[in-house]
Amino acid sequence: MAPIRLAIVGVGKIARDQHLPSIAGNPAFTLVAAVSRHDPQIEGVPSFASLDELFASDVKVDAIALCTPPQVRYELAAKALLRGCHVFLEKPPGATLSEVEALRALADEHRVTLFASWHSRFAAGVAPARAWLTERDIRKVQIIWREDVRVWHPGQAWIWEPEGLGVFDPGINALSIATHILPRPFFLTAATLSVPANRAAPIAADLTFTDGAGTPITMDLDWRQTGPQSWDIIVETDAGTLRLARGGADLFLPDSTHSDGDVEYAGLYAHFASLVAAGQSDVDVAPLRHVADANLRGTRISVEAFED
Amino acid sequence: MAPIRLAIVGVGKIARDQHLPSIAGNPAFTLVAAVSRHDPQIEGVPSFASLDELFASDVKVDAIALCTPPQVRYELAAKALLRGCHVFLEKPPGATLSEVEALRALADEHRVTLFASWHSRFAAGVAPARAWLTERDIRKVQIIWREDVRVWHPGQAWIWEPEGLGVFDPGINALSIATHILPRPFFLTAATLSVPANRAAPIAADLTFTDGAGTPITMDLDWRQTGPQSWDIIVETDAGTLRLARGGADLFLPDSTHSDGDVEYAGLYAHFASLVAAGQSDVDVAPLRHVADANLRGTRISVEAFED
Repeated sequence: MAPIRLAIVGVGKIARDQHLPSIAGNPAFTLVAAVSRHDPQIEGVPSFASLDELFASDVKVDAIALCTPPQVRYELAAKALLRGCHVFLEKPPGATLSEVEALRALADEHRVTLFASWHSRFAAGVAPARAWLTERDIRKVQIIWREDVRVWHPGQAWIWEPEGLGVFDPGINALSIATHILPRPFFLTAATLSVPANRAAPIAADLTFTDGAGTPITMDLDWRQTGPQSWDIIVETDAGTLRLARGGADLFLPDSTHSDGDVEYAGLYAHFASLVAAGQSDVDVAPLRHVADANLRGTRISVEAFED
Repeated sequence: MAPIRLAIVGVGKIARDQHLPSIAGNPAFTLVAAVSRHDPQIEGVPSFASLDELFASDVKVDAIALCTPPQVRYELAAKALLRGCHVFLEKPPGATLSEVEALRALADEHRVTLFASWHSRFAAGVAPARAWLTERDIRKVQIIWREDVRVWHPGQAWIWEPEGLGVFDPGINALSIATHILPRPFFLTAATLSVPANRAAPIAADLTFTDGAGTPITMDLDWRQTGPQSWDIIVETDAGTLRLARGGADLFLPDSTHSDGDVEYAGLYAHFASLVAAGQSDVDVAPLRHVADANLRGTRISVEAFED
């Protein structure tokens, strides 16, 4: 099969650090163009200031990877789907749930692949964790995601706007893993969102979920963590305790350990290639739906102003 | 076919005013029980203090209608679905989107009917409005839902909690009509939620949506309207203007008018009976998804405290 001719749209840090090496490392893809308003130079690849300019050019494109901020993702994705291009969406797949549903309908109508990617689901420990949990009785789940926003998002004002999601920007990674490894669907029962007095999005959140079996599931999200950082999911079962650490990269089971380096984006692109080959889409909005539910149902409390 | 043996759960004002007359008026149903913790007396029908007591009794039940507040709806609905009962959910279908998805999965698994009802969709003008719009080019949509909360929800503290939805409690009716009559899916692009200083849920909201064709759709929700009340949807098309008034009861087209009394709950029960007969479910979360999107993406501003 001929390689998929891919254009990357939005050439920022995540594109350079993760997408470009993964595309270069996967023979199913060939990078044919870059689209960026600001910093469009990728060596050896033609650059365009807009998707319209790309589509008006002689460059033939089968698929695009959208690495722009979520606020502008719908319009670009819709434009590509309408032209019959497959679309890879960075997380989160949109600024609202409803626009993602509209994109899904468009992809179905035009018979092209839409992939709403969740990179944390491809961390090394996640697939074995999911497999191990299918055979267990789950008693309790704790999600602890505590990091220092000053280290990871220095000076990023947009992340404190509603579309930036605040502490749910990292939290949605935890939710993408939890919705993937837990065998039963779960749902929110209570939430407290701590919003700095001078910001629109939360800096911390305490969430409680349950599932059809009444399993207690708690989530502790905090961006005010200095010192050691935590990206852990702990699942207590009838056969002992599972712990995923480092955002899913390390898996600790009662009698074994799985660990690997950063394989997330390589996994995403391998999955995207298989979706295109099979003529399928993969649009699971469950992680974003939980964040919307927390905003819908949660109680907001005002906390100390946050200054970068 | 034998009538569907129905139990009504939650015997409050909406049950007495709307459900009971519609059940009595539809030969497809026979009311066999009432479940209510507080005010369980319906003449000629056995009463139970809980769903567990009903299921432990000799009364045979095929379906339940859930008229309790959304906070406790999941547990009751899940209990009924697990026993193979069909379930009719009052609006909104749940306190979160994720719990409704979990119920949908349960209904599919147990091969019973789940009906997430939206009563405004059965107002007299809605079906002809939908039919008329399928053949038009839509240029602009305005939704104006302005009512006096002191008249419609006097002293109801729960409606100001997050689960009460605030002004989205009536607003979700408008959204249930708009998502039903407009031919293309639409999605939020901006929202401002006005939240009283002493309450958790908004008293007013200004929302802007669009669809894949770029149609401007605005929604003006306000609970501070004294004097004339408005529950209007105005759609400008290539063939003139459509206006739905009185929450969908009256339809004004360029060359005709459709008007009728209150037929909403009769329509809901007729639809529920046909779903049960066909072995199908009808769970459209689009209206609640728009409310969640508004809470996810909207900007909150603090306004004057509201005292009943």
